[in-house]
Amino acid sequence: MSHTLAEAVRRTIRDVPDFPKPGILFKDITPVLSSPRLLQDVVNWTAGTYAGVDVDLVVGIESRGFIFGAAVAPQIHAGFVPLRKPGKLPWTTRQVSYDLEYGSATLQVHEDAIQTGDRVVIVDDLLATGGTAVAAVDLVRQLGGHVVGCCFVVELDFLEGRARLDCPVVSLVNY
Amino acid sequence: MSHTLAEAVRRTIRDVPDFPKPGILFKDITPVLSSPRLLQDVVNWTAGTYAGVDVDLVVGIESRGFIFGAAVAPQIHAGFVPLRKPGKLPWTTRQVSYDLEYGSATLQVHEDAIQTGDRVVIVDDLLATGGTAVAAVDLVRQLGGHVVGCCFVVELDFLEGRARLDCPVVSLVNY
Repeated sequence: MSHTLAEAVRRTIRDVPDFPKPGILFKDITPVLSSPRLLQDVVNWTAGTYAGVDVDLVVGIESRGFIFGAAVAPQIHAGFVPLRKPGKLPWTTRQVSYDLEYGSATLQVHEDAIQTGDRVVIVDDLLATGGTAVAAVDLVRQLGGHVVGCCFVVELDFLEGRARLDCPVVSLVNY
Repeated sequence: MSHTLAEAVRRTIRDVPDFPKPGILFKDITPVLSSPRLLQDVVNWTAGTYAGVDVDLVVGIESRGFIFGAAVAPQIHAGFVPLRKPGKLPWTTRQVSYDLEYGSATLQVHEDAIQTGDRVVIVDDLLATGGTAVAAVDLVRQLGGHVVGCCFVVELDFLEGRARLDCPVVSLVNY
């Protein structure tokens, strides 16, 4: 099932050259989202990954991670927590900054969004170098959450982001 | 049911004064999202609103609209289409610009995301003056989509945004 699904998703992802900058081959997942059948199947695959596992919260990373994370959360009877770029969350936040290839970035979360002991799954569309995911794991743990796992629709294996994550990692489509 | 749900959501929404700027009382819906029960109930309410109605696509407006829109889409067997700020979508886009209280804003959509005749529900967290929602309706129609309706979690009645929308509008919590 997931092998067949992975192939269908892989065929549907659109390669966009030179986005967001020259030399990058962008994996555009919007054609997967707009297919009712594939969206449902990807959500079911994610939910199936955590079947029988107690999950309190799905954490989604702004902003494509909001889409898959929020699609999955109700299906596994979890709440949803957004991790956002600076200045977007209105209330008191915790934050973590991390290095990118050029420059740095910061993720914020409301400090009451995750309670000590909450069991959390982190969802994003893409695992590349892992910098953003490592930051997300740090932020969840800062608030006392337990990271059950990280789940990605696409993983760029050659960037070895998985090796930087000290929690269970699953992905549907690998390049 | 929806009256009781509306009251529960209203009690859970957090008022944040002076965000994003002085004089604005921001309605923070993140405590609703992080509650597994309330998130499920809001999604069920939205899905129930369109029960028996043929919906091909849920359109969500960046970025809080991504959360509710994506949570709802699989439940009503629809695909999901993101409307994004300029420069975020990698492929060929259509766009619409609209006036805000100060300045203007632009929304973009992939030009192949909606097909002629697709039946579309537009979902966002908040209906205020309606400028963004009107722009979203325009964009869907530019691509030949039929707007079945617009659905909001929160509506600020005193700003009269609903009067600017020429499609069916539903909202859960009204101020």
